[in-house]
Amino acid sequence: MIVLQIEKLKEQIKNWKKEGLTVGLVPTMGALHAGHKSLIDKSVEKCDRTVVSVFVNPIQFCPGEDLDKYPRTLEADSELCKNAGVDIVFAPSPKEMYGEGYILSNDFLTYVIPPYFYVNKLCGKSRVGHFDGVCTVVNKLFNIVQPDYAFFGEKDAQQLIIIKKMVKDLNIPVEIVPCPIVREQSGLALSSRNKYLSSEQKEQALVLSKILFNIKTCYDNGIKDVEALKDTAFSFLNEHHDLEYLEFRDENTLEEKTTADNNTRVFIAVKIGDVRLIDNILLK
Amino acid sequence: MIVLQIEKLKEQIKNWKKEGLTVGLVPTMGALHAGHKSLIDKSVEKCDRTVVSVFVNPIQFCPGEDLDKYPRTLEADSELCKNAGVDIVFAPSPKEMYGEGYILSNDFLTYVIPPYFYVNKLCGKSRVGHFDGVCTVVNKLFNIVQPDYAFFGEKDAQQLIIIKKMVKDLNIPVEIVPCPIVREQSGLALSSRNKYLSSEQKEQALVLSKILFNIKTCYDNGIKDVEALKDTAFSFLNEHHDLEYLEFRDENTLEEKTTADNNTRVFIAVKIGDVRLIDNILLK
Repeated sequence: MIVLQIEKLKEQIKNWKKEGLTVGLVPTMGALHAGHKSLIDKSVEKCDRTVVSVFVNPIQFCPGEDLDKYPRTLEADSELCKNAGVDIVFAPSPKEMYGEGYILSNDFLTYVIPPYFYVNKLCGKSRVGHFDGVCTVVNKLFNIVQPDYAFFGEKDAQQLIIIKKMVKDLNIPVEIVPCPIVREQSGLALSSRNKYLSSEQKEQALVLSKILFNIKTCYDNGIKDVEALKDTAFSFLNEHHDLEYLEFRDENTLEEKTTADNNTRVFIAVKIGDVRLIDNILLK
Repeated sequence: MIVLQIEKLKEQIKNWKKEGLTVGLVPTMGALHAGHKSLIDKSVEKCDRTVVSVFVNPIQFCPGEDLDKYPRTLEADSELCKNAGVDIVFAPSPKEMYGEGYILSNDFLTYVIPPYFYVNKLCGKSRVGHFDGVCTVVNKLFNIVQPDYAFFGEKDAQQLIIIKKMVKDLNIPVEIVPCPIVREQSGLALSSRNKYLSSEQKEQALVLSKILFNIKTCYDNGIKDVEALKDTAFSFLNEHHDLEYLEFRDENTLEEKTTADNNTRVFIAVKIGDVRLIDNILLK
């Protein structure tokens, strides 16, 4: 069932709560693929009821980003959800979420702002304000759905770490369930933005997972020095790859590592043509 | 019953919710007086269970403000609460609220930030960051207590308006109940900070309510021009009064008024010696 209105959703949730049922939330921007499907499956398995939100959140896009051309495929998304056993697809309009004549600046809207130390690095560095928009909308969704569990992919690892920090800092009564990255046979991490890639670019895009898998192998073989591990990346890069970052950071605090250990997560972002792709791996 | 720990409180609340009981929250910084008592009475009357939080929130004090000398009277507070029929006094330590070795900067803590338009005026102008601290702690308390109703005094009218805005913007499932200002016979609005006043200063402090009551009378007598209404204030002021602001603003949006109407709230702040006092009145 697709629900467009907040009040209608809240009513349904209220009835579930009265019956003592547990509720899982999978927040998405739609364009669902097997990565999202793995989150949905986990929620359906773990919770009595599952809500999938499909909302391309305007306030997490920066000027010049792909808000307008971000893929919107609600029909296919709801079909996937139905087949997966989802109870409600919540697909509000921006107006429903942010009000009539909505003005999305911090002049007129209350924002939830994650700590600067967590956002001034990795994707946050090039996407100023992005995680403010993410935390604000996730906070709204948590308040609307009041889920027992919420499912986030490790694909967006910085986002997951920031959401966990927000939940802790604000005492939000939701348990965050991290879900592993889903990859194509080739190693390419699934992403809605993969749709933008030509078949040639898709080939080029394998560089992210190749670099990460190779680093993991080197680490497993005993190389712990981060500079040495970084150096292993360069043989994979060519003129089609615009490396934005390759960083080794603590899995929970995002502090930078000079020596890798089992709590180290390796983060990579590469631009292939106009398409910015990210990936990451935990060195455990 | 005094509860110091978040987890213990949540357990109790969970049991109440299971029984289908409604919960009211009265958030305070302690030093309870008849003003707080009126909020408590309203909650006890309206809700099955009432929680009063007593927490001098460090992150809403600005550098140089009275955090250290702010009155702390937990024993008297809990006595007042007990007699008023309060079920739980929640009195956490700063460490309990913000964690071990807590660092209260926005480098390491998630903040809830009210819109700039609502905070860059009145008390927010001189108390930079104050309402960020208020919204953050109130958001935390809402998540911990999950009240059906929360009670706020109109004494801190800007705070009340900002909290209502936060609740709307973030879809927080709490109903805000505004409670009228309680005054001494003399007209002086009750405030925990009145304790700082000498008996002579207390006399001087009557200027706030005198100015407001006089403006209301003039308005009722047909004067609607804000400049003319402001002019009526000056005959009350003397060298003991340091007028910080006297402003006419919309009751909900805080927009400035040039012509007063029934939605206009008049805000005043005056420093008497070292003590900063505020008051306000709705021109309805």
